[in-house]
Amino acid sequence: MTNTQDNRPIIEVCLTPALWYQHDPKGKNVVVIDIIRATSTITSALHHGVAKMIPVQTVEEANAYLEKGYLVAGERDGIKIPHFQFGNSPFEFMGEDVKGKTIIHTTTNGTRCVLMSKGAHQIVAGSFLNQEAIFNWIRQENRDTILFCAGWKDHYVMDDALFAGAVVRELADDFRIIDDSTLSAKLLYRYVRENMLRSIKQATHFKRLQRLGIEQDIKFCMSNPHFDVVPVFDGEGFVKG
Amino acid sequence: MTNTQDNRPIIEVCLTPALWYQHDPKGKNVVVIDIIRATSTITSALHHGVAKMIPVQTVEEANAYLEKGYLVAGERDGIKIPHFQFGNSPFEFMGEDVKGKTIIHTTTNGTRCVLMSKGAHQIVAGSFLNQEAIFNWIRQENRDTILFCAGWKDHYVMDDALFAGAVVRELADDFRIIDDSTLSAKLLYRYVRENMLRSIKQATHFKRLQRLGIEQDIKFCMSNPHFDVVPVFDGEGFVKG
Repeated sequence: MTNTQDNRPIIEVCLTPALWYQHDPKGKNVVVIDIIRATSTITSALHHGVAKMIPVQTVEEANAYLEKGYLVAGERDGIKIPHFQFGNSPFEFMGEDVKGKTIIHTTTNGTRCVLMSKGAHQIVAGSFLNQEAIFNWIRQENRDTILFCAGWKDHYVMDDALFAGAVVRELADDFRIIDDSTLSAKLLYRYVRENMLRSIKQATHFKRLQRLGIEQDIKFCMSNPHFDVVPVFDGEGFVKG
Repeated sequence: MTNTQDNRPIIEVCLTPALWYQHDPKGKNVVVIDIIRATSTITSALHHGVAKMIPVQTVEEANAYLEKGYLVAGERDGIKIPHFQFGNSPFEFMGEDVKGKTIIHTTTNGTRCVLMSKGAHQIVAGSFLNQEAIFNWIRQENRDTILFCAGWKDHYVMDDALFAGAVVRELADDFRIIDDSTLSAKLLYRYVRENMLRSIKQATHFKRLQRLGIEQDIKFCMSNPHFDVVPVFDGEGFVKG
């Protein structure tokens, strides 16, 4: 049973935006998780020197930025939008051409989560690529934290839940778990972690994306190159925290 | 990848009533799962000779039946409602006094799931107590099936997901899995099954109920006495299928 003197902050997992109404971000930190690919791409881009990644939901919003002279990234059905400079692959934001730049990043599910997290103390982007940096940041903040899985069109997807589970497992001594979603994500990660890529290959999210030919992106998003960066949302976009 | 000739029916898990809108029961079978305790109690009662268990959501509805002379079961906050004949423990429906009887069963989460499943081909109640009977029934029906986890006040609870996972694991060769909720429930069950009671004791649902002193009920609901009964909803209540 819970120690009545237990003053550790609470860590909780929101499994999909459809369940967000069961969570209250006020005064808490929120880690947005959209492993394939939004938060992985944001993390990798900032690590490789991009100054700012501004998430927008629609091609129309991105077009408005494009007209103002911004660099714009976006895909529809896995294919780069022809008049944009970039698609959504993390591999597009690693070169000299993006260093120090601000990039408008079209991403439906991830952007919605950022908007829905309004009222949070801070919003950051988490992924396997920067997991140690995220673990350390949450631990140092020592504040109630929601791990917000972006899912796909309000549906639960396993890759997001697995990263949430990895965070919960790492922080289980320092934070309190008070609901079953959080406990299940932790147990699922413990079971799957040795064969994560194999399990993800069974997932429908993977199958859907694989048909679009982005298997290399997915392998990268499920890897852990220890990027030492915490993308923090500054009210407009993600910058290095 | 999915075989294009794959004509196996689909099995899917709805993790909480809050996500039910993502599922369409029309023409499908629905297995309602409320392990602690509604569907376990219904199963055990029918196995022990109760003729019919009629689920109702509110004490007020139950009172109306009581006035008509029905036997009525119900609790509030884990305590038997004083003027009802029974509480909600499965152990109350095992004796000679209930054989052949119809019992009005007050259960909030489970009843809601039955109402929400309107339009389904058939609605049955599943639990660990009758798991083999449920496996066989679903397999013989050979029809698209939704495993509907009742949860607690629209929140996900792990015990319901674990039973859903047990069903998916058993039927994974005969049915197609096309979403990540279903895959995750299966993987979670595979991981937890050896130490199910230990894992459930970490769950908040268990802690909440343990405080009400019903630990024996929970142990029973997580056990597998191989009750050979499939409770089928006949439009009014659950009867032996």
